[in-house]
Amino acid sequence: MNKIKPDSNEKNIKWHTSTINRANLESLRGHKGIVLWLTGLSGSGKSTLANALNEVLHKKGISTFLLDGDNIRHGLCSDLGFSDKDREENIRRIGEVANLFMNAGIVTITAFVSPFKSDREKVRNIIGKDFVEIFCSANLEICEKRDTKGLYKKARLGEIKDFTGISSPYESPSDPEIIVDTGSLDLNKSVKKIIDYLLEKRVLDLKN
Amino acid sequence: MNKIKPDSNEKNIKWHTSTINRANLESLRGHKGIVLWLTGLSGSGKSTLANALNEVLHKKGISTFLLDGDNIRHGLCSDLGFSDKDREENIRRIGEVANLFMNAGIVTITAFVSPFKSDREKVRNIIGKDFVEIFCSANLEICEKRDTKGLYKKARLGEIKDFTGISSPYESPSDPEIIVDTGSLDLNKSVKKIIDYLLEKRVLDLKN
Repeated sequence: MNKIKPDSNEKNIKWHTSTINRANLESLRGHKGIVLWLTGLSGSGKSTLANALNEVLHKKGISTFLLDGDNIRHGLCSDLGFSDKDREENIRRIGEVANLFMNAGIVTITAFVSPFKSDREKVRNIIGKDFVEIFCSANLEICEKRDTKGLYKKARLGEIKDFTGISSPYESPSDPEIIVDTGSLDLNKSVKKIIDYLLEKRVLDLKN
Repeated sequence: MNKIKPDSNEKNIKWHTSTINRANLESLRGHKGIVLWLTGLSGSGKSTLANALNEVLHKKGISTFLLDGDNIRHGLCSDLGFSDKDREENIRRIGEVANLFMNAGIVTITAFVSPFKSDREKVRNIIGKDFVEIFCSANLEICEKRDTKGLYKKARLGEIKDFTGISSPYESPSDPEIIVDTGSLDLNKSVKKIIDYLLEKRVLDLKN
């Protein structure tokens, strides 16, 4: 691409080939971009925690965006089913989109079961050092007891195939950045644990 | 999902199931989210215009993000080739991602050839009323003369198959929101034409 010279009307604008980059966008927002990747069983409280976190950060003036089943499965990944291959591709695409949002300087929160270590590691490789794996560690007994969406019942009846925790494994993170015991910890304290991490890592520094 | 009550520490926070929505995010940014979809032949100046527009808007404090070949083809769409089916899927995914960014209250700029009317119409359907089709109308003669990436030469030699304008059609938009004659119009004036549109549509209203 050729460089293009500014005309006399806008002398202060230098036209060049580089786009506005991540640092520029983080500077505009007053904080850094990061990916907060919540993983855990269905019913472990990922969405509840993600929404609460989203709300608290938003009220602090932090630029956030939440990627979850609602805005991904009906859109970007509407062509994918639930085969192993499709689930892997689903997580890959979410990782790529989260990476774009992070590069836009946004505190990007994702809430997906993402049961397989290998898939999460691939996402970690896409995103790099600002990937924060947050293990929502409520155990199967608690999640099945909650059964907020009635999915465990269906899975036990065989109406849902390959259901994580019942007929398909959940591979717990071996070294997540944050563990939140969403089986017992109060929601406010769970949110605080993550915010404290962000403060410690100076992600929110420019505003807080 | 169950509603969760706030504890006594944070009485002003209402926990509920809804996420922070588009209106909340637009309010945080001080302007609306929108998708500026640049379409035109290779060499028509889409990237140059997109980058210049990005820079001018950013300097006005507008939250922008640019989706282009650099950050899409190597990432989200790295599994796709250049068959008709893959090109269609490429544009669909870009449309879905642009929709997410728009819902994050961001002025989202895309720069892809996107030669087929049907693909662009699908994106219009995904995004809805805030899809702004911008036809970069530099004609084939001019684009081939520029041949900034040497691609037309290769296409003429048969080294690139299905190259838009040479061996694959470019279907000009029949009713785009904006036409920018990137074959003759000065870059500053091209940017101004788009900014004027955004001002007229009150997209940037909260800040300008």
